[in-house]
Amino acid sequence: MKRKGPTSANTISRLPKYIRLMEELEAQGFDHISSGSIARILGMTASQVRQDLTQFGSYGAQGYGYNVEGLKSNLKRVMGLHRQHNVAIMGAGSIGKTLLCHMRFQENNYHVVAAFDTNEELIGKSLNGTPVYHPCQLDAVHAITPIDICVLSVSAEHAKMCARQIEKAEIPAIWNLTNVDLALKGNTVIVENMHFLDSLFGLTYYLEESRPGV
Amino acid sequence: MKRKGPTSANTISRLPKYIRLMEELEAQGFDHISSGSIARILGMTASQVRQDLTQFGSYGAQGYGYNVEGLKSNLKRVMGLHRQHNVAIMGAGSIGKTLLCHMRFQENNYHVVAAFDTNEELIGKSLNGTPVYHPCQLDAVHAITPIDICVLSVSAEHAKMCARQIEKAEIPAIWNLTNVDLALKGNTVIVENMHFLDSLFGLTYYLEESRPGV
Repeated sequence: MKRKGPTSANTISRLPKYIRLMEELEAQGFDHISSGSIARILGMTASQVRQDLTQFGSYGAQGYGYNVEGLKSNLKRVMGLHRQHNVAIMGAGSIGKTLLCHMRFQENNYHVVAAFDTNEELIGKSLNGTPVYHPCQLDAVHAITPIDICVLSVSAEHAKMCARQIEKAEIPAIWNLTNVDLALKGNTVIVENMHFLDSLFGLTYYLEESRPGV
Repeated sequence: MKRKGPTSANTISRLPKYIRLMEELEAQGFDHISSGSIARILGMTASQVRQDLTQFGSYGAQGYGYNVEGLKSNLKRVMGLHRQHNVAIMGAGSIGKTLLCHMRFQENNYHVVAAFDTNEELIGKSLNGTPVYHPCQLDAVHAITPIDICVLSVSAEHAKMCARQIEKAEIPAIWNLTNVDLALKGNTVIVENMHFLDSLFGLTYYLEESRPGV
């Protein structure tokens, strides 16, 4: 079931939380859950939960609530997670390697097809089963195995240059872990930023706010 | 200058972007910038920029705009970044080690006082200058050097248990990198979640939405 009409970025940012909860409940053997229980666990109101889920055609049954497996599958479909996406890692340094080894790509339907790095010691080898190429081979790899998402995990000084290269190769999406705002020229690439420092600064703000006498 | 009245979470989430931009501009030798230019670079409207900054007592001067250094300092003070915060890393595996070596803690006024891990080969040694302790020493370390923020970078199956231990030790804030919702009992700990998968799922949603014919 596709969404009808525009959905707010805040609603979209909550979808992975619902999916994660349904997966946990499923693993624990639950088959139904009420909007009230979802709300309690996720720290929301029941009406907000119902409002979010109704937008995607998920309605709880009176007295039973939501079917756990059904809700999970529907939200995964809404997010495009039912489809396999090819991922490439640009930058196989410390962060790139950590992702390659610890991020649960495969079980979430992401297929890591390649990593790119200028480190001569890595090129031509494989990291956790993923072949490593020189960045100049990006177009060639993309031509053979179309890349849907390029993870940008290079150092800050190379971030903008690499982003432009990804844009030029017409890869549709960048997952940006570099803490650099990419400022791409066109509007053709979808960019999601995961700024580590922004997240830590946000936490520090709330900590500062909670200080007695501040 | 402290903020007056409640500030939305969205505004707070934009503050690090303003700070980062001011730092970049300062490095490039700029001393003033208009709300219009800030808006253009960050992909916002000028009125939204002025509205955000006015809340924190930063007003641009007619014809000159904002003083770059002044705005940066003010926003850093608002976020509590003028104060040093003691940080501990719970979990010195791959993610914890990457953070210890690559996250610019020190230059952002975070002092990493300790790392905790059950790996016997690490305990008693130091990682990038940070001493590693067994998690059972958390209370003792915290008693000597009060920890403001505990980074949670343990494996998913240990996340909830470690979070409860941090809560029990009365450490005021957790930066949660585990992709697990912690569900702490009390409301005493401030938690900021940085869920890698949520961010990737969000990107996938927008990619799905952009597919032709979808």
